[in-house]
Amino acid sequence: MADQKQKGNTPPAKDDNKITTRASNYSEWYLDIVNRAGLAENADVRGCMVIKPNGYAIWENMQRALDGLFKGLGHVNAYFPLFIPKSFFQKEEQMAEGFAKECAVVTHYRLRSVNGKIEVDPEAKLEEELIVRPTSETIIWNTYKNWIQSYRDLPLLINQWANVVRWEMRTRLFLRTAEFLWQEGHTAHSTQKEAEEEAMTILMDAYRKFAEEWMAMPVLTGPKSDGQKFPGAVYTLCIEAMMQDGKALQAGTSHFLGQNFAKAFDVTFQNTEGKREHAWATSWGVSTRLIGGLIMTHSDDNGLVIPPRLAPIHVVICPLGKNDAERGPSIAAAEKVAASIRALPRDDFFGYQPLNVKVDTDFLHMPGYRFAEWELRGVPVRVEIGPKDIEKQACVVARRDIPGKEGKTMGVPLEGAAAFIDKLLREIQANLFNRAKAFRDSHMKSADSYDQFKQLIEEPGFIWAHWDGTRETEDKIAEETKATIRCIPFDRPKEEGVCMVTGKPSAGRVVFARAY
Amino acid sequence: MADQKQKGNTPPAKDDNKITTRASNYSEWYLDIVNRAGLAENADVRGCMVIKPNGYAIWENMQRALDGLFKGLGHVNAYFPLFIPKSFFQKEEQMAEGFAKECAVVTHYRLRSVNGKIEVDPEAKLEEELIVRPTSETIIWNTYKNWIQSYRDLPLLINQWANVVRWEMRTRLFLRTAEFLWQEGHTAHSTQKEAEEEAMTILMDAYRKFAEEWMAMPVLTGPKSDGQKFPGAVYTLCIEAMMQDGKALQAGTSHFLGQNFAKAFDVTFQNTEGKREHAWATSWGVSTRLIGGLIMTHSDDNGLVIPPRLAPIHVVICPLGKNDAERGPSIAAAEKVAASIRALPRDDFFGYQPLNVKVDTDFLHMPGYRFAEWELRGVPVRVEIGPKDIEKQACVVARRDIPGKEGKTMGVPLEGAAAFIDKLLREIQANLFNRAKAFRDSHMKSADSYDQFKQLIEEPGFIWAHWDGTRETEDKIAEETKATIRCIPFDRPKEEGVCMVTGKPSAGRVVFARAY
Repeated sequence: MADQKQKGNTPPAKDDNKITTRASNYSEWYLDIVNRAGLAENADVRGCMVIKPNGYAIWENMQRALDGLFKGLGHVNAYFPLFIPKSFFQKEEQMAEGFAKECAVVTHYRLRSVNGKIEVDPEAKLEEELIVRPTSETIIWNTYKNWIQSYRDLPLLINQWANVVRWEMRTRLFLRTAEFLWQEGHTAHSTQKEAEEEAMTILMDAYRKFAEEWMAMPVLTGPKSDGQKFPGAVYTLCIEAMMQDGKALQAGTSHFLGQNFAKAFDVTFQNTEGKREHAWATSWGVSTRLIGGLIMTHSDDNGLVIPPRLAPIHVVICPLGKNDAERGPSIAAAEKVAASIRALPRDDFFGYQPLNVKVDTDFLHMPGYRFAEWELRGVPVRVEIGPKDIEKQACVVARRDIPGKEGKTMGVPLEGAAAFIDKLLREIQANLFNRAKAFRDSHMKSADSYDQFKQLIEEPGFIWAHWDGTRETEDKIAEETKATIRCIPFDRPKEEGVCMVTGKPSAGRVVFARAY
Repeated sequence: MADQKQKGNTPPAKDDNKITTRASNYSEWYLDIVNRAGLAENADVRGCMVIKPNGYAIWENMQRALDGLFKGLGHVNAYFPLFIPKSFFQKEEQMAEGFAKECAVVTHYRLRSVNGKIEVDPEAKLEEELIVRPTSETIIWNTYKNWIQSYRDLPLLINQWANVVRWEMRTRLFLRTAEFLWQEGHTAHSTQKEAEEEAMTILMDAYRKFAEEWMAMPVLTGPKSDGQKFPGAVYTLCIEAMMQDGKALQAGTSHFLGQNFAKAFDVTFQNTEGKREHAWATSWGVSTRLIGGLIMTHSDDNGLVIPPRLAPIHVVICPLGKNDAERGPSIAAAEKVAASIRALPRDDFFGYQPLNVKVDTDFLHMPGYRFAEWELRGVPVRVEIGPKDIEKQACVVARRDIPGKEGKTMGVPLEGAAAFIDKLLREIQANLFNRAKAFRDSHMKSADSYDQFKQLIEEPGFIWAHWDGTRETEDKIAEETKATIRCIPFDRPKEEGVCMVTGKPSAGRVVFARAY
């Protein structure tokens, strides 16, 4: 994981079979991975993407893991309408400011055919326009109004898996698209304390846990500054990750909404003393953006690297041989090893799913080509079985996280291959996390003056710096350096100081970075 | 399962705690079930529904089972955009006729705030209107154009889980709503034969299998008449079910699309002989409408009945007791039985999920109330454990499919309760199917004249009748009797005859019914 921002290098002449290196052009490298690994592509609809099968399979694994975490914490799923009447946005002032801007507006409900041309039927104009949901707080709290009467109806712990639309002008596959897929949790509680605990539980026991233990992506946890919070929230908690180019990715947010939405939609309940009170709320979400985070955390110049717990294919076995006589025994051995891996006992680590093993019998291509293709697609473990291996009743096991010879184990007995690979997959999962964490930690810097800050921000990484706590100073820094406050980490060191810009008192350092 | 259409009865005075009986008002009964079992409700957005947690949990189980069937048949999932440019509908003539009519049209991409009021920004008008997908053939075949070059790229076997919108004027929860959830499969093949086999495989090995083996809902299988086929299809195959009121529900369709979409979107591939050919297509879908079918197939006047394989909660255990001294041991025994059920070995029958067991410790309500609530929600098995049971180290097991004493087994030893219930759940699944099939079969009638047909159609059930095969006759029958041709079953008896309306020759009887 070399420095991503190496400059002044003449980029190597681009070979169409190779992906751009991270060092030569990080953005191109990212798009090459997305494209070449078959994850997604831009649709012929402005700002929208097609999530291709290889990309969607990762999302399905993410969904399964997250859904299990939410349910383990007592949540249930439901589904609310795609369309939100325009007037709903009017009810919560900050929502209107923050969300009811760049969005898709449905104004008509019928097309007609005139002389064989299809056009919008002007007769079919809606009385009130409908907004395609950019997020669902308004429609959900409008619904909760009828569900919440008494403290006995609380808490409501509901999650929704859905598509949402925000009319983005500059899009980038997975990271920022007009339509994207996500989950949005919306909970209602009878006390402030319980709602605040919920926002924290989701952050730490669902989002942080998922990011670190499934995605192998270390995250900072803590509140956002007021300038970066969700419109309509009292405060926003976040998980924030560092990509390999040192930029930040907001990977998930959990909002304490206070009574803002309950007041806007008049949601009250009778408390234990018989008095009516407004309910307390949280909302929280992660999206297909996480796939972008996954790519930019682990992948390398050979292609995608997927942590085993989220890999659609865990193991690929490549039987080898120059002719049918050689290939037959290789294929037989490959199938036998595959069956033994699929038959490994199911456990929680892989969500009680059997391991997915693919036997690659594409003999039209040379072994090197086949290996490179599977590396590109990020399969965590590759097994090679050729005639010489068969002689020794053994195989070669290559781990994707360590490309080349260093990551190969020769002479793994066929008999014990399944157990060896089972153990190796868990080791890869741990190694990816440790490596990403070492990278992140080695790119956390401190600035003690604004000048130093301006210098450091040109290099990859996050910067700890003192800030006076005001929106003005935050905006000034953003304008002058393109860096924003990413997080005020819960575990930041206790260290009072003075703001690097204004010299006013600071309660402690916060984390700045340029972000996706 | 008494006759649903009993007339002239004075409906009993409605008790707010009871649901309407099927005999008194079938439509009201349906809505009462949906409402009282917490499955769904109408949203404050015209024609849209909120799928509530109890309803969504059934949908999740349906999704898991169907997704497993599709994947077992070699399919993968992907995701395509919500929005379809208007011009795409122009490309396939029949699509334009059939679908580009009642749909939601996005014309603007921004709102603005003027004097604190939110309004559509007239500056932000789209150059080309976007249609919220009513179905995705057009956008998907526009995408396939870039994915398909050679016969080696085929077949493409792709499925999408998504929301779709059709602007329905008269809606009914689950059965017909403006927005609904579904899956839509879209496959591309190099030969007509392979595409036709795919349409058939999905119908028989996914849809029929799912309907009968998971939903316990017997279905007729066969093509639709031309008048009832999907716009753009060469032909449409369907699974068709009979509800308890004798009306038909189209539960799933699988279309052979020929080369229609490949031609409309210019999707060609190089075949094995090096020539370019248009690809062959299928599409197929089932939706949240199936939840309506599930309700109307099995439920009774006590509430919802859910087949065990789709039940969100499989078993509820109600510990009983007049006071804490009695309740303590009951609860302890209940928890022990619950743990033993949860620990049953996972198998394919329940999708390798552990059985979901709930222990109901709501002692604020009388046992009768508690039992009725769980019956209403359709939990397949209820266990009662009170002080007298504890004395005998036994419990009472009540099955939901047979309400009342008849369905109760007394004195089931606590020790063997888990095994007893495991077996009982499978028995209930089979019983529900057999019962629904017996009902369906006993409501299949034959009409030999149009007069007889007109008489029979006023009673619940399907009618076998001869028809001359023309659209005109079909339309005339529909207009005069509100009955449509539901299916031309694959396994219809060989019997030539003459059309009951025109007297023209008929190749065999087809199935007519009034439908949802």
